[in-house]
Amino acid sequence: MRALYFDEKLSMVEVPKPSPEDGEALIKVLAAGICNTDIEIVKGYMGFKGIPGHEFVGIVEKSADPRWVGKRVVGEINIACNECDLCKIGLKKHCRNIKVLGIKDWNGAFAEYLVLPVENLHEVPSKVSNRQAVFVEPLAAAIQILEQVHIKPTDRVCVIGDGKLGLLISLSLNAHGVKHILVGKHPEKMKIVSDRGVSTLFPGDVQSFDRFFDVVIEATGNQAGLETALNIIRPQGTVVLKSTYASKASVDLSKVVVNEINIIGSRCGPFEPALQLLEKDLIDVNPLVSQVLPFEKALEAFELAKTKGTLKVILEVEK
Amino acid sequence: MRALYFDEKLSMVEVPKPSPEDGEALIKVLAAGICNTDIEIVKGYMGFKGIPGHEFVGIVEKSADPRWVGKRVVGEINIACNECDLCKIGLKKHCRNIKVLGIKDWNGAFAEYLVLPVENLHEVPSKVSNRQAVFVEPLAAAIQILEQVHIKPTDRVCVIGDGKLGLLISLSLNAHGVKHILVGKHPEKMKIVSDRGVSTLFPGDVQSFDRFFDVVIEATGNQAGLETALNIIRPQGTVVLKSTYASKASVDLSKVVVNEINIIGSRCGPFEPALQLLEKDLIDVNPLVSQVLPFEKALEAFELAKTKGTLKVILEVEK
Repeated sequence: MRALYFDEKLSMVEVPKPSPEDGEALIKVLAAGICNTDIEIVKGYMGFKGIPGHEFVGIVEKSADPRWVGKRVVGEINIACNECDLCKIGLKKHCRNIKVLGIKDWNGAFAEYLVLPVENLHEVPSKVSNRQAVFVEPLAAAIQILEQVHIKPTDRVCVIGDGKLGLLISLSLNAHGVKHILVGKHPEKMKIVSDRGVSTLFPGDVQSFDRFFDVVIEATGNQAGLETALNIIRPQGTVVLKSTYASKASVDLSKVVVNEINIIGSRCGPFEPALQLLEKDLIDVNPLVSQVLPFEKALEAFELAKTKGTLKVILEVEK
Repeated sequence: MRALYFDEKLSMVEVPKPSPEDGEALIKVLAAGICNTDIEIVKGYMGFKGIPGHEFVGIVEKSADPRWVGKRVVGEINIACNECDLCKIGLKKHCRNIKVLGIKDWNGAFAEYLVLPVENLHEVPSKVSNRQAVFVEPLAAAIQILEQVHIKPTDRVCVIGDGKLGLLISLSLNAHGVKHILVGKHPEKMKIVSDRGVSTLFPGDVQSFDRFFDVVIEATGNQAGLETALNIIRPQGTVVLKSTYASKASVDLSKVVVNEINIIGSRCGPFEPALQLLEKDLIDVNPLVSQVLPFEKALEAFELAKTKGTLKVILEVEK
């Protein structure tokens, strides 16, 4: 099969079609999205070698459980051992022996086929298109915030960052009726959420909100975002960290202690509510698609995804 | 009156006796404890100029409310304006116009007299000695952890740091029936808690507890403590930060995000449960007293308090 392979550099190669083992399914990839993590990976993040890609939709071609065959699916990216102490206390996505689709020790979705444990699969409702389904994984990550933090109707909420993740967070908060302000630098990106009634601010304008917000969600991917968050969060408020940095950040911890701030790291989330938002048309991800390219143009698509201002680039592997 | 005054340097001076205003009480200081914050203050932390000292016990000599006169009291250190938005939502100790006894814009307890709002006072039960009462403020700060974090009976809990604060936290967890391990470097200090059944570990030995604890309390006052905390906390676990640093700390935030760690800053706490622990003899703070010196020897006491290995140094202002 054809696959995009990363080993110090990214190239399109011919590799053997993978074989599912016990409890796994072979999935023919229909479409896959390029995420910032993929861009980090091809810079060397995680030391990954193999096929990247973790946002996908596909059709189950082979499975030990025949009920899955022929189903259109998306898949959770964390492959757990189901045996370690963390798996056993329910923290499977934090498994000690974790493998992660296209990120860590497991080949990903920029290929004609991939393999995943059946327990990771979710059927995609017919009303949800392939392009929409590609957003299920990042949308689930956005929804994870609501799994972790109790946001009250009276809370003053601010999302910092108008990249793909920041916008998805804003749209998903909006779909859950959570009023908030989005802080970003790009009027054309912020328009996607302001069209839906979300207030927006430029970073310079939010600085005057001294210790004001009850909940601040940091999704900029850079250190300045956290600094702003620690300035605008009220005492005993909650800062949600969604960004991962390759390097260590310099943080004013005195502020965290003196203001008794709660900082919560947040990563992958639940797929079912993400699928439901899409099925019920409660969220429109289409404005987030910058370009859809055929799989042959995968290398070009990566270059495009790296370009400043680009939102989601989707590869159509199988029409 | 005599007072210890800090203005670039610390000296014993003669200053006018303060006059209480509306809603305030004049308190004759009986004893006052030297805290690490005081040592930071005389290094220039907070830019404080005036009389330091915030851990005290005294007798109310004058008060608009006659019921307080003659009472032996301790006092909460945060003086709130009661008018700003933060005061109005109940966050008085985080008041926008806050003054802090002996720390910020308000003269403190290393003096023959001090003034505090009556609303800050708590009567000391007769069973609690002056030496014990001096510990109410830091003990309340230790108890604040239990106000902020729900620690379950099955949780694995670790306290890092065997300074005054770490030991008080350990003793107060113990008094609340919270089983835990104390990590410290000083066998003679750790003996204070191991004598009461708390397990102890050296920092080198705790490193093997990879992502193990449900709750980790960082009370070392240095950056290495937080690094250890982030290594030994389990995914989705809670790290409580009690230390304030003058400088910014370098933090691996990816670890916080990927492991979905919850970091909670924790500062001052409730006085009543602290007084109750002392009254009911559920906590023994006496082993934490390194030395009690008369007020005339205040400068000497400060030097002693700065010495490595010293625990609490108490000044007896009035016998």
